[in-house]
Amino acid sequence: MQAYVYEQPRELSETEFADYLNPATTAVVSIDMHRGHLDDSPDCPCPAPRARDLVAPLDAFHDRVRALGVRLIHVRSTLRANGEDDIRGIPAAWRRTFPLHVGPIPNADAHAIEGSRWTEWRTRVEPGDMRVDTKRRLSAFYPSDLDFLLRNQRIETVVLDGGFTDCCVLSTAFDANNHNYRVIVLRDLVRGTDDKLEAAALSMVSLHLGLVMESGELLRVWGQRPH
Amino acid sequence: MQAYVYEQPRELSETEFADYLNPATTAVVSIDMHRGHLDDSPDCPCPAPRARDLVAPLDAFHDRVRALGVRLIHVRSTLRANGEDDIRGIPAAWRRTFPLHVGPIPNADAHAIEGSRWTEWRTRVEPGDMRVDTKRRLSAFYPSDLDFLLRNQRIETVVLDGGFTDCCVLSTAFDANNHNYRVIVLRDLVRGTDDKLEAAALSMVSLHLGLVMESGELLRVWGQRPH
Amino acid sequence: MQAYVYEQPRELSETEFADYLNPATTAVVSIDMHRGHLDDSPDCPCPAPRARDLVAPLDAFHDRVRALGVRLIHVRSTLRANGEDDIRGIPAAWRRTFPLHVGPIPNADAHAIEGSRWTEWRTRVEPGDMRVDTKRRLSAFYPSDLDFLLRNQRIETVVLDGGFTDCCVLSTAFDANNHNYRVIVLRDLVRGTDDKLEAAALSMVSLHLGLVMESGELLRVWGQRPH
Amino acid sequence: MQAYVYEQPRELSETEFADYLNPATTAVVSIDMHRGHLDDSPDCPCPAPRARDLVAPLDAFHDRVRALGVRLIHVRSTLRANGEDDIRGIPAAWRRTFPLHVGPIPNADAHAIEGSRWTEWRTRVEPGDMRVDTKRRLSAFYPSDLDFLLRNQRIETVVLDGGFTDCCVLSTAFDANNHNYRVIVLRDLVRGTDDKLEAAALSMVSLHLGLVMESGELLRVWGQRPH
Repeated sequence: MQAYVYEQPRELSETEFADYLNPATTAVVSIDMHRGHLDDSPDCPCPAPRARDLVAPLDAFHDRVRALGVRLIHVRSTLRANGEDDIRGIPAAWRRTFPLHVGPIPNADAHAIEGSRWTEWRTRVEPGDMRVDTKRRLSAFYPSDLDFLLRNQRIETVVLDGGFTDCCVLSTAFDANNHNYRVIVLRDLVRGTDDKLEAAALSMVSLHLGLVMESGELLRVWGQRPH
Repeated sequence: MQAYVYEQPRELSETEFADYLNPATTAVVSIDMHRGHLDDSPDCPCPAPRARDLVAPLDAFHDRVRALGVRLIHVRSTLRANGEDDIRGIPAAWRRTFPLHVGPIPNADAHAIEGSRWTEWRTRVEPGDMRVDTKRRLSAFYPSDLDFLLRNQRIETVVLDGGFTDCCVLSTAFDANNHNYRVIVLRDLVRGTDDKLEAAALSMVSLHLGLVMESGELLRVWGQRPH
Repeated sequence: MQAYVYEQPRELSETEFADYLNPATTAVVSIDMHRGHLDDSPDCPCPAPRARDLVAPLDAFHDRVRALGVRLIHVRSTLRANGEDDIRGIPAAWRRTFPLHVGPIPNADAHAIEGSRWTEWRTRVEPGDMRVDTKRRLSAFYPSDLDFLLRNQRIETVVLDGGFTDCCVLSTAFDANNHNYRVIVLRDLVRGTDDKLEAAALSMVSLHLGLVMESGELLRVWGQRPH
Repeated sequence: MQAYVYEQPRELSETEFADYLNPATTAVVSIDMHRGHLDDSPDCPCPAPRARDLVAPLDAFHDRVRALGVRLIHVRSTLRANGEDDIRGIPAAWRRTFPLHVGPIPNADAHAIEGSRWTEWRTRVEPGDMRVDTKRRLSAFYPSDLDFLLRNQRIETVVLDGGFTDCCVLSTAFDANNHNYRVIVLRDLVRGTDDKLEAAALSMVSLHLGLVMESGELLRVWGQRPH
């Protein structure tokens, strides 16, 4: 099968990585595909415009995932409405550091506020999917109950797609690795701050954390397995 | 004061980042400066040769840290001697992925084995320093007791130095951020897999996680504070 | 001030326990006062009938807490609607063990299901209160984000009230203790399985975990502090 | 098989509790059988004299456990030598509360100090056993790496023995339950503060957390399973 190691396509042995490739013990974890990152308006509180073109391909990929019976979990940042776990507590670091690079983010205080339109999903969430709504910072794992959920479902491999390859996706990949999950990141279904940091984050995954693959290739490998 | 944002030196307001700069609530966390990464022999189990030239400057920096009364914590990977938490449990991902880039690592099974010479410190550890010996994967936080220790010491800012900017240092920076610590990474006192991933990891820190500074500049800022 | 040590009222020094008594760094954590435990109907999924008479005194106590500006957090068990984190995952142990004592619980599968009436609060929750909705098993701490929230609010003392002194309250008290919070359990505002286990759980708290007090006495001590 | 429910011996179906009874996915976790609790001298820093008579039967039981190939993990409290994670950090609550019941404990500051004789094991630890040395408070789980170790070993059931039924054993049982392990506590191989709290803690386990069994009965059930 094909995977990418430090940006280079490589042919890897499916036998050697068999523990990564069992759909029955795998969950796809889709990260932060909500209006707060993707909305095309000036008051989008934490804009990730490069991820907007992921919506359609993610919906298509997730349909294939559901059809194969692979578990699908949507994770989104949500913050208590009164700000107790962020701007009226200990504010997240990105609120001061990211504007040093991209300039002021006028509506950042509205980011991820529970019950606001900024937490609305932009990819499709279906009744059989699972949701994790207590991502509070960058990782999908802490302080959410994602690890608890994965263990209850006896998941051993997580496949990551969604937003900010070099931030929330990478933080989640590190956490998944530290918790001993097998990690696959889908290079065509994640987007980073820019091309350079996106490529670097994927290289880090490929060297230290797991496999970087195209979604089509993963579907092909899953499809050819005996059922 | 000077910090680096996406590789560029920038002048930032000390007032705006005052919560990062209080030595009384800060701990320096030095990561994996042990023989298993730094030994200059063919059987070094997880070679990080670029980090070898950090030993002398880290010892000098840590002396200044101690002199200022800032807490100093040395963290090292350690694995149970019979392999129960890695090669005879669920093996760490890097054992298969890193060789795809650097080639075979003949003695990798000996990495971090408790009681072996591969866990010997190469930087100086003094009686008043603290140690964390239960780093088992990449992050200094999980499954160690580092967070527990920091909270007991009422630490609010962590300053990271040591080994693999794009791996253990970055994983630790993400975890520290997710746990609401203020994060500073010292760009002259960390080393990555290569120049490119090292620079990219520091850029990610500067955009999403905290401040990237030179150690000399941090000492200067600490030194000018009233005591 | 008066506290109870192994069921005996004792006069303790407020000075010696000053770190327990600062309202500014305290949160009251109210546990599982929802219809799934308190409903007076045969299909109540996890009946805790002894706790029903707590509703009125808890509402009154919480009004005093709000008036003093002390933070108030309501925690409730909630399980994903499709059962992925319990009956269609790894089922909670109480589902098999508790009926050995109380007999069959016909509607237990409906316990805490998200969106059902069994998660409706029976005590009053006001807009300025905080809520934690990801208690999945016994402790209010794991796998919820309670610890994350408390740290953001710089809470150092937790005051526990609510349901099952010898089960969820005690599990939460152990976790709070292990996370280094100062713990107070309000003996008049918790209820256990029966008198005997309730008294034993409070004795364990008083010996190993913190202070057991009457709510009126705690209000008196808080009230006499200078503001 | 026989188990105890609220102090009463009961005949339970092995089929119904089959997930508790598989030696291949079980670990025995032995808690705090060290000199700091068991030493018969006036300067014992945290005396648990009732547990002293457990040493011989525990050694005998553990020999049977090893012979059956069941994993065995010894956990002990250990605190950094300079006190940073307890008396010179945020002191453990028991230091003030337990003396309210038992009177002053003159040498309590020496409890569990790393490298001191108070951390010496009193039960036998053999080379094939596993050890967890970062228990810092009451639970064997937090902030240690016990959960990480159990997951690496694909353990699903924990069998608890050792010291303070109503304190560290019960805290560990709650944590194991919250982390979805099947829990067995061996009533003949644990000791509590006194008969009353010991019995109450076992009753709580039996109602909310798992099975309370005699060690001989568990060995009998394990022994009759096909291999």
